[in-house]
Amino acid sequence: MPDSRPIGVFDSGMGGLTVLSELVQSLPAEQFLYLGDTARVPYGSRSPRTVLRYSLEIASFLEGHNIKMLVVACNTATAHALEDLKKRMSVPVVGVIEPGVRALLSRTKTGKVGVIGTRSTIKSGAYERAIQSADPSISVISQACPLLVPIVEEGWMNKEFSRLAVREYLTGMSESGVDAVVLGCTHYPLLRSVIASEFPGFELVDSSVEMSRAVSAIVSEKSLSSTGPGGVRIMVTDVTEQVADLQHLFFPHPVERTEEVVVPEIQTEP
Amino acid sequence: MPDSRPIGVFDSGMGGLTVLSELVQSLPAEQFLYLGDTARVPYGSRSPRTVLRYSLEIASFLEGHNIKMLVVACNTATAHALEDLKKRMSVPVVGVIEPGVRALLSRTKTGKVGVIGTRSTIKSGAYERAIQSADPSISVISQACPLLVPIVEEGWMNKEFSRLAVREYLTGMSESGVDAVVLGCTHYPLLRSVIASEFPGFELVDSSVEMSRAVSAIVSEKSLSSTGPGGVRIMVTDVTEQVADLQHLFFPHPVERTEEVVVPEIQTEP
Repeated sequence: MPDSRPIGVFDSGMGGLTVLSELVQSLPAEQFLYLGDTARVPYGSRSPRTVLRYSLEIASFLEGHNIKMLVVACNTATAHALEDLKKRMSVPVVGVIEPGVRALLSRTKTGKVGVIGTRSTIKSGAYERAIQSADPSISVISQACPLLVPIVEEGWMNKEFSRLAVREYLTGMSESGVDAVVLGCTHYPLLRSVIASEFPGFELVDSSVEMSRAVSAIVSEKSLSSTGPGGVRIMVTDVTEQVADLQHLFFPHPVERTEEVVVPEIQTEP
Repeated sequence: MPDSRPIGVFDSGMGGLTVLSELVQSLPAEQFLYLGDTARVPYGSRSPRTVLRYSLEIASFLEGHNIKMLVVACNTATAHALEDLKKRMSVPVVGVIEPGVRALLSRTKTGKVGVIGTRSTIKSGAYERAIQSADPSISVISQACPLLVPIVEEGWMNKEFSRLAVREYLTGMSESGVDAVVLGCTHYPLLRSVIASEFPGFELVDSSVEMSRAVSAIVSEKSLSSTGPGGVRIMVTDVTEQVADLQHLFFPHPVERTEEVVVPEIQTEP
């Protein structure tokens, strides 16, 4: 029995479109409903409690749109909200961290792996915990790289500037014997070739690719597949100047429509 | 009759502390109440309508704290909300654009001036309008510099990286014969020495200095001065990892307390 309900995908902003891009290629018959919280981006510099609240609000909003699965494309939201989302949602919830970690562990030979991401993702320790609960013998070196997101959004991936920043952030990791690095932020796949050319010794793990494999596996295992037609609807919480540019940068595929929505707030005392 | 009510200062985040820093030096007997909207920073990438809504919410919140004047330290909020705030508030409202523009006009000799700021400030055209309504013969060249804020927040002001970015953004302006440039974003004063050394031909206008002069003038003209004791209270809408670091970076003065507050929302349909 085909299941034509959409798959919900959410991110703090437009970066999660790199994940959606992999998903539509792996699952062309599925309907996708993407929510980018552009009114409140970036989650990477918010407190864990605030990120949790925003994530719950969005999950509840997407549940109201009858999704059959929730894909948390945002590393920061996965770090701070995945466990709560899994408990509260009746549909399967997939975060971006576990699939990346599995790939990382399968590729390292030295047993030293690297994690790069936003300040908040790194500070959360979520990747370290996932890696060490899977294999406690692995050493993890983490590095927050706050400038890489604005470099990508400025379109400066191929400037000298971008090489300098990559070198500044990753040299220590390379000198420590790390041989596999997970790109722990949705924007980083666009810097993959710069990182690869500066640090050819690294096996680079692209979370969006790994996540799309995990989603395909769950769709199949839980008999959730649709027989089509596939399609993509993009919703944002603020139509900013950048929305169209970033959509074009991160998602070079057709989109049925892009629209602004209001996600109802859950106001809590601090 | 001394007026001991506080002066309210607001910004989208912690950058407005560069303005507060100038204010406490010019007006040491005053009480200041600073509100940094760290839960919703950066305004620079939000839509004008959203920036207006956030600004009205904060102004109303600060009015509830019995302020005698409102200082809008955020360039983006000044660009999109100053006129509305002036209409709705019963106390004087000072924005960051006009004082900077006056200084710019007094310093140019070529009649060609430059404006640098966030995407949203530049896109708003607010500086151009203010400059051209003061003197229509002036040519204005504007440049959005989205990477400069994250460079400052990362503390990379003195790295080669920072020179490359400044050169990338300002070379065109310099070649066009601009001789005076306003730093149209609260973070940029921390890059002043890099800009000055790369482009010694520019007269640099620091809006925080100009704004603090304007506020002093209004306090005196409207007989709003306090006889002390002065003090500073900092409120933020989200206590993030970065709040303490940025407070230290932008505001090297004593603070009575830093606390988290909830600014009530005004929910509107899109």
